[in-house]
Amino acid sequence: MSIRLYGSPFSTSTARVLAAISEIGLEVELVHVDLYSGEHKHDSHVEKNPFGQVPVLEDDEFVVFESRVITRYLVRKYGKKSGLLKEDNPRDAAAVDQWMEVETQHFNKPVATLVYQHLFRPHFDGVAADEKVVAEEVEKLEKVLDVYEGKLSKTKFLAGDSYSLADVHHVPYGHYLVTRTPHASLIDSRPHVKAWWDAVYSRPASKTATETLVMTP
Amino acid sequence: MSIRLYGSPFSTSTARVLAAISEIGLEVELVHVDLYSGEHKHDSHVEKNPFGQVPVLEDDEFVVFESRVITRYLVRKYGKKSGLLKEDNPRDAAAVDQWMEVETQHFNKPVATLVYQHLFRPHFDGVAADEKVVAEEVEKLEKVLDVYEGKLSKTKFLAGDSYSLADVHHVPYGHYLVTRTPHASLIDSRPHVKAWWDAVYSRPASKTATETLVMTP
Repeated sequence: MSIRLYGSPFSTSTARVLAAISEIGLEVELVHVDLYSGEHKHDSHVEKNPFGQVPVLEDDEFVVFESRVITRYLVRKYGKKSGLLKEDNPRDAAAVDQWMEVETQHFNKPVATLVYQHLFRPHFDGVAADEKVVAEEVEKLEKVLDVYEGKLSKTKFLAGDSYSLADVHHVPYGHYLVTRTPHASLIDSRPHVKAWWDAVYSRPASKTATETLVMTP
Repeated sequence: MSIRLYGSPFSTSTARVLAAISEIGLEVELVHVDLYSGEHKHDSHVEKNPFGQVPVLEDDEFVVFESRVITRYLVRKYGKKSGLLKEDNPRDAAAVDQWMEVETQHFNKPVATLVYQHLFRPHFDGVAADEKVVAEEVEKLEKVLDVYEGKLSKTKFLAGDSYSLADVHHVPYGHYLVTRTPHASLIDSRPHVKAWWDAVYSRPASKTATETLVMTP
C-alpha cells in the first residue's frame, strides 16, 4: 500500500487533509508541489488534477482531488473506527454532511478573505488590508458564528456530541483566523464557539496539521 | 412516514433536490416557502434552517438543510437501489463525491452568476446584464467545461459510465444556462459535454424538476 498526498505547506486545503490523516493515524508520503514555481500547473500535476490545484491524493493507482473529498475517502477506507463520518446511521451521517457543507458554503469564504487581507496580501503584494472588505467579511462571519453559537449551545461539536469530520474541516482556517488576523475575538466573544474551538484546536491532530502550515507574517 | 420539502419554485436549490427525489421515485410533500414575502426569514423557518434559506427537508422529526446534503441523505435512506452514490465501493463513492464537489466549487459560481446577469437582474432589477462580468464568468466557465470535456471523453457520465448524484446536481443551473442565457453554445460546442448534457437533461426526473422552476423572463 502506497498513499501519496501531493500538497504544499502554504496550502490550507493540504492542512485540512493532514488534520484528517492525523486523526485516523494514517501514514502517507507527503509530496511537495512547489506553488511558487507553478509546479501545480505543470502537465504532470494537471494529469492528476485537471484544475491544477493541490492537494491530490494517490492511493496506488487511484487518484482523487478536492480536500473535502479526500478526507471523506480516507476516513471511509482507512478510518471507519474513528467515527468521524457516522455513516452507520443516515441521520447522523447527514448531520455531519450538513455541517461540512456549512463550512464550505458559509464559514470558508469570509474567513479565507480575512486571512487573505491580513496575511497573504501584505506578505505577497506588500499592500495593507482593505478595511472596507474586512468590515464586510467580519459582518458576514459574525452572522455565521452566531448560528454556530446557537448550535454549539445544544451540542458539544457541530454534528452532535462526538467529534466529526465537520469539525476537522475548520482547523486550518480557524488556526489562521485566531493566530494571523486581529479577529480572534469573533471566536472568543462567543462562549460556546470558544469552548468548541478550544476542544478542536487542542487536539494533537490539529497541532500536527497546523504546524505544517508555513507562512512568515 | 411523512417527508416534507420546504422550498420554492424560484429556487434552483429546491429543484436540485426535486431532481434527486424524482430519480429515486420518492413521494414528498412540497411546502411552498414564499421568498417574495420573506417567509424564509420568519422564526418558523429559521428554526429549521438558521441561515434562513431553502430548501429544508423534514423527515418525521429529523430536519436537514443544504440541497446537496438533502439529496445525499435521501439517496442513502430511500434510494440505495438507484446507485446514485455508489457507496458500496469507497473509490467509486469518492469519484461521485469529487464531481459533486467540482459542481459546488467550480461549475456553480460562474453559471449562477451568468443566470443572475441574464435572467434575475433584468427581471427583478430592470437592469441589463453587466457585459464585463458576463465576459469574466464566461471565461471561467469555458475553462471548467474544458475539464468536463476531457473527463467526458473517457466516461459517459462525470463519475464513470453510470449516472450519479454528481450529474443530477447539474440539472437546475444547466437548464437555466441553456434556456435562459445566450451561452448554450458553451455546452453545444464541446461534443462530449453536449452528449452528456443531452443524456442528463432528457431524463424524466430532470424534466420533472426543471418544470417546477418558474421564472417569467
